[in-house]
Amino acid sequence: MGPGPVNAHPRVLRAMSADLLGQFDPEFTTYMNEVMALYRAVFQTENRWTFLIDGTARAGIEAALVSLIEPGATVLLVRSGRFGLLLSEIVERCGGNIVTVDAEWGEVVPMSAIAEAVATHKPAVVACVHGDTSTTMAQPLDGLGDICRAHGALSYVDATATLGGMAVETDKWGADIVTGGLQKCMGGPSGSAPITISDRAAEFIFARRHTEKGIARDDLAQGGRARIGSNYFDLAMIMDYWGEKRLNHHTEATTMLYGARECARIVLGEGLEARFARHAAAGRAMTAGLRGMGLTVYGDDTHRMANVTGVFIPEGVDGEAVRRRMREDFEIEIGTAFGPLQGKIWRIGAMGYNAMKHKVLITLGALEAVLRAEGFAVKSGAGVDAALEAWG
Amino acid sequence: MGPGPVNAHPRVLRAMSADLLGQFDPEFTTYMNEVMALYRAVFQTENRWTFLIDGTARAGIEAALVSLIEPGATVLLVRSGRFGLLLSEIVERCGGNIVTVDAEWGEVVPMSAIAEAVATHKPAVVACVHGDTSTTMAQPLDGLGDICRAHGALSYVDATATLGGMAVETDKWGADIVTGGLQKCMGGPSGSAPITISDRAAEFIFARRHTEKGIARDDLAQGGRARIGSNYFDLAMIMDYWGEKRLNHHTEATTMLYGARECARIVLGEGLEARFARHAAAGRAMTAGLRGMGLTVYGDDTHRMANVTGVFIPEGVDGEAVRRRMREDFEIEIGTAFGPLQGKIWRIGAMGYNAMKHKVLITLGALEAVLRAEGFAVKSGAGVDAALEAWG
Repeated sequence: MGPGPVNAHPRVLRAMSADLLGQFDPEFTTYMNEVMALYRAVFQTENRWTFLIDGTARAGIEAALVSLIEPGATVLLVRSGRFGLLLSEIVERCGGNIVTVDAEWGEVVPMSAIAEAVATHKPAVVACVHGDTSTTMAQPLDGLGDICRAHGALSYVDATATLGGMAVETDKWGADIVTGGLQKCMGGPSGSAPITISDRAAEFIFARRHTEKGIARDDLAQGGRARIGSNYFDLAMIMDYWGEKRLNHHTEATTMLYGARECARIVLGEGLEARFARHAAAGRAMTAGLRGMGLTVYGDDTHRMANVTGVFIPEGVDGEAVRRRMREDFEIEIGTAFGPLQGKIWRIGAMGYNAMKHKVLITLGALEAVLRAEGFAVKSGAGVDAALEAWG
Repeated sequence: MGPGPVNAHPRVLRAMSADLLGQFDPEFTTYMNEVMALYRAVFQTENRWTFLIDGTARAGIEAALVSLIEPGATVLLVRSGRFGLLLSEIVERCGGNIVTVDAEWGEVVPMSAIAEAVATHKPAVVACVHGDTSTTMAQPLDGLGDICRAHGALSYVDATATLGGMAVETDKWGADIVTGGLQKCMGGPSGSAPITISDRAAEFIFARRHTEKGIARDDLAQGGRARIGSNYFDLAMIMDYWGEKRLNHHTEATTMLYGARECARIVLGEGLEARFARHAAAGRAMTAGLRGMGLTVYGDDTHRMANVTGVFIPEGVDGEAVRRRMREDFEIEIGTAFGPLQGKIWRIGAMGYNAMKHKVLITLGALEAVLRAEGFAVKSGAGVDAALEAWG
């Protein structure tokens, strides 16, 4: 019950024990095409270029940024937590010229501030994080695409922590690239990063195409723009691999693809709306339960992520001792925190396969017992009762 | 029976259906440490820094090169096939200044030529491929380390296609970084790249350490050398994650780690010498069988890889039609070829779980039937008989 990775759905684990297929076997390329279709629905997009990056969620972020950012390009970053800082870190290494619009940790950036910053700096790329688990806040993104298009900017959204748990509305937002991961609300293991790319972003990236020697072909137009700074994360080559050309790049991670496919099948089988409602109920119940117990929840309710809740460590309580007892006595993991929040809050998740009523209730009951054992008495049973009522 | 990916060992697939653990759960970090110890034995090294890169084999190559190569550094590449060209491709994107010592496809580069090139160019880094599946040749590497150390160069070896199937003698070679993959002789799926790093290479890489904001700590000395051009492939940060500091970087790909761990347990359970002998027998039998059938094997026998054999497509035979029949009638995949060899040879693998007597014999029997069906009669039974005899 941490901020991710969390337990995978058992169906995903079973799918990952299927035998391997060759990467150009028609059965396997059919699975690749199915994955593209499934993730279009998950990302709520019509984007043709919707596929997987072979690596963890962070690999998806870097693939998007290194392919979008030409050295020297101005990049506007919308930041309000650790994963906003990660964007800076990656953009610096891509050679981007960074400008930022920041909020304090625990807050979000108003769209009007983003609009103003785009108008002022005229960036080539605008990048932001949808749900930053470090602060448990979800950045509103309605209107992002219109603002970017009005100024010729391409936009990128890191939806690692929200995909499959909160509405990631790629086309409605007008976001050009959105990436995710499996290990949060998708209910799978870390190691595969779903990505979706708009036609205009794909066109820009193909203008940077420099196919590697040894597999170059006459029918592949080479781009006039700066070569992408990474081979592994070169989205032009990866699109040529996932597209009809099937041009060899990396060797697709067969087992992770089986897992990613099963995650999406489960998500869509449940239905996006039902799934988002289940995550919202879990978040609501967790928040109510923690408050019912007399603890103080971190951050403001308006922009809270559904799937991870920050809660202040009470005065005089050893946060790490509590986490250890939770793990050792109850086999439940809850999360620590980063940066300015380290030692101040715990982060308790309820996402994917873990966003279930009984898991929320058991976690709250366990936390009550552990706090008591650590000498911090809370009103017995109040947390669980409040959560039960809030689940609805 | 292609040049990889190949069928995974069933034990590996079962291991990958185990439930997930949190990345800092003591049970999981114990597995991480076990993986480090297991891969030291697989790489035949004492290197402390031996772990996994979360991505396909190509991710391991890029992580090694981007961490070793500072922009403007001279890099000597030893090339004799497509995967040698891939090194060029990646080094260019790292900003390396490339010099090369090349052999024709199907040949290898004599160590004397490497020595001469190192003395002439005084490169910062020397990079080469151990087994290049595009040509089916294995580059001899004895003496590489001495040559490099004498001139202050760091060395890198791509052992993707040979690790677990032929002797990858990291310490005996004196190689500074060696990377592999699971999907060839290790008998697992693509998606995790084992890597080993010598202390001197680690020292160099830590001199490039620039810990990302949001997780930086006072006890982490920041390096004076050029920041590594990738966040995801920053080996300094990845070592700080796999080492005692356990500094958060990516979220380790749990399921792929379970798979990589089981691959190594199987390899070491069989024993390296027994495993290399099995691969050698399979290669010998395949080569003898193809010759027994009257076909011409590609390349010279002295430097042939044990686990993949090139064979000329006979005059008048449609190579793709044969591959299709092999797959459709016998469910056996054999490989096509790249670059100058495309349309000229097939590449037939026998590696990892597939390096078994019955699979070699069945493949040869199937190929005979398919060639006959395509109107190219070979002497019936001669291939299988020759392979049986050569297996020994």
